[in-house]
Amino acid sequence: MKYSIGVDIGGTKVKVVILDECKVIHKYELKTNKENNGEFIIKEIVDSICNYINNNDIKYEMIYSIGVGVPGPVVNDVVKFCVNLGWGEKNVVVEFLNLLPFKTFISCLNDANATIYAEIYNKYNSAVMVTLGTGIGGGIFNGTVLEGFNGSAGEIGHINVSNPYHFKCNCGLHNCFETVASSTGIQNIYKFKTNIDLDCKEIFTKAINNDTISLEVIEEVCDYIGRVCSILSVTINPEIIIIGGGVSLAGGFLLDKINYYFNKYSFNSVKNTNIILSVLKNDSGGIGVALYAKEKRKCVSKSET
Amino acid sequence: MKYSIGVDIGGTKVKVVILDECKVIHKYELKTNKENNGEFIIKEIVDSICNYINNNDIKYEMIYSIGVGVPGPVVNDVVKFCVNLGWGEKNVVVEFLNLLPFKTFISCLNDANATIYAEIYNKYNSAVMVTLGTGIGGGIFNGTVLEGFNGSAGEIGHINVSNPYHFKCNCGLHNCFETVASSTGIQNIYKFKTNIDLDCKEIFTKAINNDTISLEVIEEVCDYIGRVCSILSVTINPEIIIIGGGVSLAGGFLLDKINYYFNKYSFNSVKNTNIILSVLKNDSGGIGVALYAKEKRKCVSKSET
Repeated sequence: MKYSIGVDIGGTKVKVVILDECKVIHKYELKTNKENNGEFIIKEIVDSICNYINNNDIKYEMIYSIGVGVPGPVVNDVVKFCVNLGWGEKNVVVEFLNLLPFKTFISCLNDANATIYAEIYNKYNSAVMVTLGTGIGGGIFNGTVLEGFNGSAGEIGHINVSNPYHFKCNCGLHNCFETVASSTGIQNIYKFKTNIDLDCKEIFTKAINNDTISLEVIEEVCDYIGRVCSILSVTINPEIIIIGGGVSLAGGFLLDKINYYFNKYSFNSVKNTNIILSVLKNDSGGIGVALYAKEKRKCVSKSET
Repeated sequence: MKYSIGVDIGGTKVKVVILDECKVIHKYELKTNKENNGEFIIKEIVDSICNYINNNDIKYEMIYSIGVGVPGPVVNDVVKFCVNLGWGEKNVVVEFLNLLPFKTFISCLNDANATIYAEIYNKYNSAVMVTLGTGIGGGIFNGTVLEGFNGSAGEIGHINVSNPYHFKCNCGLHNCFETVASSTGIQNIYKFKTNIDLDCKEIFTKAINNDTISLEVIEEVCDYIGRVCSILSVTINPEIIIIGGGVSLAGGFLLDKINYYFNKYSFNSVKNTNIILSVLKNDSGGIGVALYAKEKRKCVSKSET
């Protein structure tokens, strides 16, 4: 019996999952201790893992791998920075290895990429994920997770999209994709047209019920999303594009319109790219990074033998 | 002594290079025989290689690898189709192995990707190439060449770019990047503004000499190129973006303007991406695919030992 552990470090709590093969057999949380620029975070995680192992009569050699997900850019297992944790550049793998009382395989991944890994694991060889939340995130998977030169691959919320609003993005630029297709962006377009503050979910409900202005807003938003999906597919040509995040809860109503505009803008050879809705469940960040580290260890072991 | 062979199959001729390590020690060409949907092409290449080997007293076991570049999409060494050669789906590797009188390692790559491989070999770990010619091609390298699900990764000429002209692209769509930033696109914008047919090179010469309309056209074109480069960098986050193709011969004048617009549109964390001009030389397609096959064999050998 071998266990894989996934640690999802967030700004307020750390979620830990223990997997036996691909099944979660245990999970727990601890508070993220941000004192002194987060210098105790890793020590407290290691202590909690050791407690779990000792209390459950698990032998150290049964821990096949530990995956660590962090809310910041990661390149080759090294964290570039995590504003939310107070971390600058940090070699998380080395810190875990120094603190753990046993040897195991450790790997580190950006938390959004960990989530995507959970989504596509054992299903697709290549995928692009478009996460439409209060902002827009993304991830690219092509055999493995694409991290990019400084961990910024998949920052698709900041793709420049021509639009008549020119809302200012949190990043300082104008015309970023997330200013017109995140839930915030949808609300802002609706307000621009009506001068009314309405929640994104309500705008969708009204659109489904054929309210003219809401429908106009959603059509326009799906035009932006379809256009960006067409850009992503002609650039990366993934097997599948997965739409996730809060906005994706609008379901088939949203997906049909995205597909319509995707087809309108797409180059012939990528027109058949499937676009689907995310099916992610709870704890996907921890599960994803646990699976990622497990597969990476398998791969490394293979090439060493 | 080990030799790597690169075969660059084009629509009119096949170029063959023989490399000793990374140096070209011999090269020759043959006519591409397109009779019967190109069914004799591989046989004629194999015959020419055998002739060369026999005439030069090379032992079969000294041929470390053969790389084959083709003008069409390739996924995992299988050609999807090559309109210019009359080929449908074709397992080039198997056909070579069946016809060759000796065993060696064979690999196949799209010709544009082969060219990019020559450009970045031993220099960069990740790169995006933007080839501004009569159309626009592209390639993405991230440790290895990104082929995409059906061989269409890097078809960046068909990224949708908002512009006032809506010229129709050869692919049937409107607003493709190549309709406004290839040499054809530049000529078409100039004609739209002046009703005069002028060669792309002349438009650049006039712009360098401060002709108002030409300068306006080039500024606008560089805005499109800078915008697309910003999209590529925030999506793929490569170490470097390389501008190649005939239009890139405009040199520093072009590059400075592209950098200006790239900076204007780019997300902070990728603003420092270097954009450089291509330094490709002759035979880069053949050299690239020879190096690609050589490195792939090294990699395969390593994981088998």
